Amino acid sequence: MELQDIKSPKDIKGLNYQELEHIASQMREAVLNRTSQIGGHVGPNLGAVETIIGMHYVFDAPIDKLVYDVSHQAFPHKMLTGRVDGYLNRDDFSKVGEYTSPVESPEYDLFYAGHTSPALSLCVGIAKARDLKKDNYNVVVLVGDGALSGGEAFEGLDAGGALNSNLICIINDNQMAIAENHGGIYKHLQHLRETNGTASDNLFKSFNWDYVYVAEGNNVQKVIETLQKVKNTKKPTVVHINTQKGEGYTPAEEYREAFHYRDPYDIATGDLLKVSENDNSNKIFNEFIFRSCKKYPTFLFITSATPDDFGLNARERELLGEHYIDVGIAEQTAVSVMAGAAREGAKVVYGVVATFLQRAYDQLVEDWAMDPSPALMVVAETGINAIKDQTHLGFWDIPMITSIPNIVYLAPTNFEELEAMLEWGLAQDKYKVAVREPVFSKVHADYEVDKDYSDLNKFKVMKEGKDVAVIGVGDFFLKSQKVVELLAEGGINATLINPRFISGVDIELLNNLSKDHKLVVTIENGSVEGGFGQRVASALGTSGMKVLNFGLEKKFVDRYSVKDLEAEYNLLPEQIVATIQANL
Amino acid sequence: MELQDIKSPKDIKGLNYQELEHIASQMREAVLNRTSQIGGHVGPNLGAVETIIGMHYVFDAPIDKLVYDVSHQAFPHKMLTGRVDGYLNRDDFSKVGEYTSPVESPEYDLFYAGHTSPALSLCVGIAKARDLKKDNYNVVVLVGDGALSGGEAFEGLDAGGALNSNLICIINDNQMAIAENHGGIYKHLQHLRETNGTASDNLFKSFNWDYVYVAEGNNVQKVIETLQKVKNTKKPTVVHINTQKGEGYTPAEEYREAFHYRDPYDIATGDLLKVSENDNSNKIFNEFIFRSCKKYPTFLFITSATPDDFGLNARERELLGEHYIDVGIAEQTAVSVMAGAAREGAKVVYGVVATFLQRAYDQLVEDWAMDPSPALMVVAETGINAIKDQTHLGFWDIPMITSIPNIVYLAPTNFEELEAMLEWGLAQDKYKVAVREPVFSKVHADYEVDKDYSDLNKFKVMKEGKDVAVIGVGDFFLKSQKVVELLAEGGINATLINPRFISGVDIELLNNLSKDHKLVVTIENGSVEGGFGQRVASALGTSGMKVLNFGLEKKFVDRYSVKDLEAEYNLLPEQIVATIQANL
Repeated sequence: MELQDIKSPKDIKGLNYQELEHIASQMREAVLNRTSQIGGHVGPNLGAVETIIGMHYVFDAPIDKLVYDVSHQAFPHKMLTGRVDGYLNRDDFSKVGEYTSPVESPEYDLFYAGHTSPALSLCVGIAKARDLKKDNYNVVVLVGDGALSGGEAFEGLDAGGALNSNLICIINDNQMAIAENHGGIYKHLQHLRETNGTASDNLFKSFNWDYVYVAEGNNVQKVIETLQKVKNTKKPTVVHINTQKGEGYTPAEEYREAFHYRDPYDIATGDLLKVSENDNSNKIFNEFIFRSCKKYPTFLFITSATPDDFGLNARERELLGEHYIDVGIAEQTAVSVMAGAAREGAKVVYGVVATFLQRAYDQLVEDWAMDPSPALMVVAETGINAIKDQTHLGFWDIPMITSIPNIVYLAPTNFEELEAMLEWGLAQDKYKVAVREPVFSKVHADYEVDKDYSDLNKFKVMKEGKDVAVIGVGDFFLKSQKVVELLAEGGINATLINPRFISGVDIELLNNLSKDHKLVVTIENGSVEGGFGQRVASALGTSGMKVLNFGLEKKFVDRYSVKDLEAEYNLLPEQIVATIQANL
Repeated sequence: MELQDIKSPKDIKGLNYQELEHIASQMREAVLNRTSQIGGHVGPNLGAVETIIGMHYVFDAPIDKLVYDVSHQAFPHKMLTGRVDGYLNRDDFSKVGEYTSPVESPEYDLFYAGHTSPALSLCVGIAKARDLKKDNYNVVVLVGDGALSGGEAFEGLDAGGALNSNLICIINDNQMAIAENHGGIYKHLQHLRETNGTASDNLFKSFNWDYVYVAEGNNVQKVIETLQKVKNTKKPTVVHINTQKGEGYTPAEEYREAFHYRDPYDIATGDLLKVSENDNSNKIFNEFIFRSCKKYPTFLFITSATPDDFGLNARERELLGEHYIDVGIAEQTAVSVMAGAAREGAKVVYGVVATFLQRAYDQLVEDWAMDPSPALMVVAETGINAIKDQTHLGFWDIPMITSIPNIVYLAPTNFEELEAMLEWGLAQDKYKVAVREPVFSKVHADYEVDKDYSDLNKFKVMKEGKDVAVIGVGDFFLKSQKVVELLAEGGINATLINPRFISGVDIELLNNLSKDHKLVVTIENGSVEGGFGQRVASALGTSGMKVLNFGLEKKFVDRYSVKDLEAEYNLLPEQIVATIQANL
């Protein structure tokens, strides 16, 4: 049996261990084949090959339910469930996404599970439904690659431990999240590994689960023998499997963080095919962090497992020493640590990826916005040009953050403004400041940017005109500039505004526009619904001024082309101009 | 020393155990004195008296930092920090809130901490700031009353366990959250209690904390002796204290759930002074739940520790049997269990209090809205008439829920509509439906309400008029009706609309209004910013129609009078009418 011939999990049922090892080896090649060409998660999938073969060998999907958390380690599962072409043939790569997907495979992929830590709780739900249906299949969840540090995973262990029923949780312990793992629990996992699973004070047992340990998690026979023992158990059972992230591919074994997710690379060497440009916001973040660390004795940079998004590699993290804390994939805790440290006077920056900040909405409201804790939060990967998997969209940070009282959300439009806003946000002690990374606008200012943003909600007129005023928010200021240029070609001398603030509107400026403008246009790189532009529309509701709001729609979109989506959303400069002209 | 003479924690430092017991006894009387007259948390505070006396006796606040989670058990702390009058004198009750508050006491109250589970992480932040300042005070957090089931508490244990520094976590184990505790961990705590803290597989040790057990947590001497031993520790240390919820007051010891939070009652008997009316939405929820349980074999009602808000007492929960699951204070898990059970075909209802749903924003997006999991969520305690502590406001559920794709959010305006929307939401299998409890509109419909809501975003014209159209959202429909009546007295025959849907707008209807209306008015019992009305303003942005949005402001407000706040927000019917007239 060759990997390419596998159409469904049934095809591996009759194989012996040697044949399964052959499949495993072909799977590793397939992971490298795909990721080296179009990028993707390398290490997590290489490490999980034997575990997932074991799962499909021992359990009978789709009758038994197999769930992955986080599902970026589920490539081997996809290969066994009719999607192997997505790893073998370049033409078919785009048919298969990075995460499990009920659209790709309604039968075998129960959930997207693109964010870490929910799957144990999802499986408690499945187990409850099964029991209510008086059915008796196995519910199996693979949890790993850092997913165990997120609070919901512990809640799921807690809820699962209270079930008197079948629920099997495989802990894929590859000793890593994205960067190194942090937190007391990882010492505990290490202790369990070192004692072959016999250490006292077993976390999983304390949550009322049975516990089994597999030392050789990349040995398919050992995995299968263990899973066969726990199959059909009537008690919540943890199978703790020790695997190696990147197993079988030397560069990924050696540089585990770099090969967690990798842009296209040369398989022979592991080297990236294209080195990303230097003058990017990561560099600004990096320089800002080190500058601040020198300036403020109590400087603290907080990350929740994504230091790379802020330009910090392993060596730099070490240099920061006590001024750096990685709480693991635990955004709730990151926000609370930010609020706590700021309450005690530390100079705190929390750098977070927009989609993951969703996990800390309550902490933003209750621990940060409400408490006397000035601090600076930097929100990365926002808008249409950031992460394009539907599980990781940065489309909703504006509605989320701007509906919370007391948070000043700033949208820089270029590098210098980004830098100035970071500096101001950290220097001042009066406000809670969040800064939105301008993913799209990788440009330098050709004017002197303001250094002080304490005059809240003060929009800046960049060019005075009449009839039409275009408000270009953050990231999309460049696009707005283009719109104004095109309007000028059509004889319309439009006003161009950089609002800078997205958490409030400049009522005075908006009212003044009424004198010689007929239409106000907002263009933002985020959700229109609940966003900035709708606040402008509301503020101008009784003014007689027309308002047009451009932005992203309230829809999940997956692995889209930016240009196509912009066209669909009527966001290309020519389209915006046409709509403006039609409304004059 | 008498309780009333205590001005600061210093005043108890010289007392002997007998004198401290006298203070403890007076504290209990003070708790009853206040809560019996104006309502409040009874049991949690009675149980924590000796623990908190011990904390203030052994540690030196405000130099040592004392934090409470959840802070509704901190009445004794307030009594020792200059606020005892708030418990002794009726005239002073209103000066003191239910939770710790940095406004009430910037020195002694570090955070509001009105939601459970963040405080361990807040304290990790404090400890980091302390260490960066090269300071060396104690950081002490009292965690209890159910706060240990929330995911962030585990994250906090995880992050704390990685600190090489002083951090003392007192677990106030009163064996209860609001209702009984659920989840594997509570079996573990019970096991620890039964073995005097010596049980194997100690959860706290597995997170890398030192651990001490105090069996007699309502014995002030035992508490003090233990805390003295851990003071100035250089390692994260858990002190697990076994207390009795309601200790010292028989009705509260006996009816622990009823006395968790109690409306005004007779101290002698514990009986409520005023029995709440019968015809309320709790009763509708209760009847709906039992009706559905009969109708659907796979019916599942999920709560995250607030069954009472949905009319379910202990006996009824038992009647529901396997059709009921309380995941504890763990909303993330509740949403994922809902999504998981619905994915497998169960008929699922999750009943949740609006302010607590904030904790599950990410799960709403990633696990429910994105996955093929139809289910019904009921959102209680919304708007200005619900909970009035600033930590528990239900003002932001509309921005939160309506910015998420695929969730149909319905706002019933009366009992019959509520019932019809619940029935439809659960019967259908196509949509994810959320229903907003109409806290304000305790009225019956005088017309036949629709049974089917599958024609999404279809607004309903309740009365046709011209010039002005008033859209009265859910809860505030009654107010809108009043506004239309007042307008009629002034000669304006306004149109009155019940939108029913708040997650989308009826573009066709709005466009049709343009013919014979000049002004559209939206009135909603929720945040204007990011809310329903701003969507209407945006949709009408180029129509030439004027739009006025009424609703709540983006501000934290605490223990307000509804009437005063409505007046401040320009929401009294006469004010709304005046604003409308001024804009015609």
